[in-house]
Amino acid sequence: MRLGKIARKLECELQGSPEIEIDGVAGIEEATERQLTFVSNPKYFSKLKETRAGAILLSRDGPKSSIPTLISDNPYLAFAKSISLFYTPPEPIPGIHPTAFVAESAVLGEDHSVGPNVVIAEGVRLGENAILYPNVTLYPYVEIGDDFLAHSHAIVREHCKIGNRVVLQNGAVVGSDGFGFAPRSDGSYFKMVQSGIVVLEDEVEVGANSCIDRATVGETRVGLGTKIDNLVQIGHGSAIGKHSVLAAQVGLAGTTRVGNHVTLAGQVGVAGHLTIGDRVIATARTGIGRSVAPGKTVSGAPEMDTGLWKRNYLLMHKFPELVRTIRDLEREVAALKKKIE
Amino acid sequence: MRLGKIARKLECELQGSPEIEIDGVAGIEEATERQLTFVSNPKYFSKLKETRAGAILLSRDGPKSSIPTLISDNPYLAFAKSISLFYTPPEPIPGIHPTAFVAESAVLGEDHSVGPNVVIAEGVRLGENAILYPNVTLYPYVEIGDDFLAHSHAIVREHCKIGNRVVLQNGAVVGSDGFGFAPRSDGSYFKMVQSGIVVLEDEVEVGANSCIDRATVGETRVGLGTKIDNLVQIGHGSAIGKHSVLAAQVGLAGTTRVGNHVTLAGQVGVAGHLTIGDRVIATARTGIGRSVAPGKTVSGAPEMDTGLWKRNYLLMHKFPELVRTIRDLEREVAALKKKIE
Amino acid sequence: MRLGKIARKLECELQGSPEIEIDGVAGIEEATERQLTFVSNPKYFSKLKETRAGAILLSRDGPKSSIPTLISDNPYLAFAKSISLFYTPPEPIPGIHPTAFVAESAVLGEDHSVGPNVVIAEGVRLGENAILYPNVTLYPYVEIGDDFLAHSHAIVREHCKIGNRVVLQNGAVVGSDGFGFAPRSDGSYFKMVQSGIVVLEDEVEVGANSCIDRATVGETRVGLGTKIDNLVQIGHGSAIGKHSVLAAQVGLAGTTRVGNHVTLAGQVGVAGHLTIGDRVIATARTGIGRSVAPGKTVSGAPEMDTGLWKRNYLLMHKFPELVRTIRDLEREVAALKKKIE
Repeated sequence: MRLGKIARKLECELQGSPEIEIDGVAGIEEATERQLTFVSNPKYFSKLKETRAGAILLSRDGPKSSIPTLISDNPYLAFAKSISLFYTPPEPIPGIHPTAFVAESAVLGEDHSVGPNVVIAEGVRLGENAILYPNVTLYPYVEIGDDFLAHSHAIVREHCKIGNRVVLQNGAVVGSDGFGFAPRSDGSYFKMVQSGIVVLEDEVEVGANSCIDRATVGETRVGLGTKIDNLVQIGHGSAIGKHSVLAAQVGLAGTTRVGNHVTLAGQVGVAGHLTIGDRVIATARTGIGRSVAPGKTVSGAPEMDTGLWKRNYLLMHKFPELVRTIRDLEREVAALKKKIE
Repeated sequence: MRLGKIARKLECELQGSPEIEIDGVAGIEEATERQLTFVSNPKYFSKLKETRAGAILLSRDGPKSSIPTLISDNPYLAFAKSISLFYTPPEPIPGIHPTAFVAESAVLGEDHSVGPNVVIAEGVRLGENAILYPNVTLYPYVEIGDDFLAHSHAIVREHCKIGNRVVLQNGAVVGSDGFGFAPRSDGSYFKMVQSGIVVLEDEVEVGANSCIDRATVGETRVGLGTKIDNLVQIGHGSAIGKHSVLAAQVGLAGTTRVGNHVTLAGQVGVAGHLTIGDRVIATARTGIGRSVAPGKTVSGAPEMDTGLWKRNYLLMHKFPELVRTIRDLEREVAALKKKIE
Repeated sequence: MRLGKIARKLECELQGSPEIEIDGVAGIEEATERQLTFVSNPKYFSKLKETRAGAILLSRDGPKSSIPTLISDNPYLAFAKSISLFYTPPEPIPGIHPTAFVAESAVLGEDHSVGPNVVIAEGVRLGENAILYPNVTLYPYVEIGDDFLAHSHAIVREHCKIGNRVVLQNGAVVGSDGFGFAPRSDGSYFKMVQSGIVVLEDEVEVGANSCIDRATVGETRVGLGTKIDNLVQIGHGSAIGKHSVLAAQVGLAGTTRVGNHVTLAGQVGVAGHLTIGDRVIATARTGIGRSVAPGKTVSGAPEMDTGLWKRNYLLMHKFPELVRTIRDLEREVAALKKKIE
């Protein structure tokens, strides 16, 4: 594709020849002369000099480059969009595969693709343009909006409600039983029927093999546009706000409130019955044991202010030496006391 | 349902009018005037004044309330039981779905529900009242007791043995190969055939997408009534006792002994070849590197006594200041020494 | 089987009677008089005196034993091989099960076993001797070498490439979408098409319910002979070298380079854009936030040298006492200063 056409499609200003042929996109280190790349993080501006890329996406106030340049307000977003100019995933086959099982009472919207061995149980309502890859299972009375995309082995359990443009990656489980057991006097456990549901609002994505438990009563909710990575656990009765990001292997215990625009990095854990304010950032592996005020950045386990945590980490490298110093001081002070008295 | 009837069904003493109509149950903050709630944790007694609930479950020695009250020895357990008075999950369809595959040599007990695309391999023995949701796979020679409930995509591997009243949530894997590889002299690995099995005793529940590995030789065992949450890893050859609780994302390395009535909170990890005594509690994210004596409560990574861990955590907030104090003391002591000599 | 025959099959020197009958293998503590066991770790040499095993595998320079002994250069490897002398997993049924769906354009090598409800999409190429257990899904245009073994519910996504003798445990996901979202100016996220693939080189094993994300552009790669345990997350664009070992619940963030012969123990996390050198060992639960030089052993979160981490851990037990000592010293030094002035 010519660079001029790419510029038009990405709505970018072009600095350089529109005739240059571009075949694909790549990161700044890997890109070759027929590929488009980008830089948005100033940390990587220095790589501009070494790149072999044929063209580059930059912001207006970014560095200048001798390479043909596409100027964008948001080079990373433009790069994100450019990928689909060069790659289309295989088209799902329209219609219902003969090996799929669709209950008579299920209602499917138009233009669906239902793959082999998919199961759609009684009372399911599914919007338009649904794509269900092989072996997806929708339990009874599930309600799903338009443009649903469920990859193989994704599961939606009974009565759960899913909005429009939701994506489930492979093996994602929406609505598994909450972990609710009441102890009997002999120390054994009574299983509480998990009567609640899961609600996924519009544009939520759930990663591969992640699990979102249904509430014991009421609902577990994931807000508009929130993105959940692989192997994440959302405990029963939790509520996550809008446009938040939960990276891989994060765990929310249960009845946890997470605000809007929150970022929980990989392997973060959050205890139950807490409130995580809007725009909180928890760095990787943070263990959150108390509620966190809006806008804070936390680290460590249990969590503390990230600045303090970084200082402490550096100081821990001197911890054995500090202990020796304390012991030396004890001896010296004792000697001084003796001398003076 | 009238409150009088609820009191009879839950075997509670009623203080208030038996005529009150109750439609459902909810937590104390969410409950409305036609809902039943409960308080058992003294921490939440203060919420009694604000609740809009129509009725409440309390213990005999609990606080008094002006709301119609059901008196129970174990209000949380009574609440757990009350949920099923108002909610029943969709009934599984009796019989074997035509798309299921059941080997000729498999033996199924009475009153089963075998969903679409279920696979029951040769030599499987399944007790009465089994419910297998779509896409469940039972490998050859699996033996399972009565009242088995397996949700979609649950898997039981060859030769594993499962007791009565066991529940597998979606995507749970029982009997995957243990992670056993013997290093060759060139640094490559030889895969050891995993010849052992997994045994789940009666009333075990395994959470969604959790994995319990078969033993290399012998067995991996989960004891009576033990409950395992989602995304938990049980390494090969481990043995867990009775009525223990493993919360989400816990990992046991392998050949780990866990006692009875143990609680491992979310994201806890336990190294291999250790023994965790009866009634041990490990708080969330504890990393257990040594055996733990019965009855202890541990935290941190590596684990330490929870009391010490809490003190240390508070002190870490003063760590930079403490280091400055040590450096000040060094200077002052040096100055004092100079003066005196 | 007679011990003489076992010695021949394992290519070991026999010290003792070749007539002894052995029925199986077991660990040194569990082995009975008709079982073979082994010791290779000097830590367990003392158990030699107590074992009831009928025969034992030892190295030439190992301890002496009165039990009939098989001498091996690598007793653990010989033990690993001995298991398959006594146990064979159930044979998969040859051919394609009638409930499997195989696209017309898919090409399968000879001697395959394709189980019930398996889905092989268009354009898939599969080598000889493939075993696909029930409900395995191969997306379009997957290419796989010889001797592929995929357990139930394993999934390989579109265009991914897999070498020879690769094993996928149950529910393993190869090629799920990378977690790539570009923030828009309003704080919502744009999903980047994940146009890359996953490449698994020869002899890789992927554990149950583990997820290996496809690259945004380019590839995610796992090198020759690398073994991945259960519930592991490999972020998009990562590259793992040869003969490395990733234990259960490990997470690599994305674009992470891991060298050859690396060991990441259970629940280790590695941040993105880092390089982990050859032969690095990270002990359980290490949180790696910076690149690690070849040959290092690291622990803690964030990671530090394992020796330092161990010293710090021991010192943390004295942390409250050290703080009291510092406070005492402050008072004493102040008193001394007063006296002298």
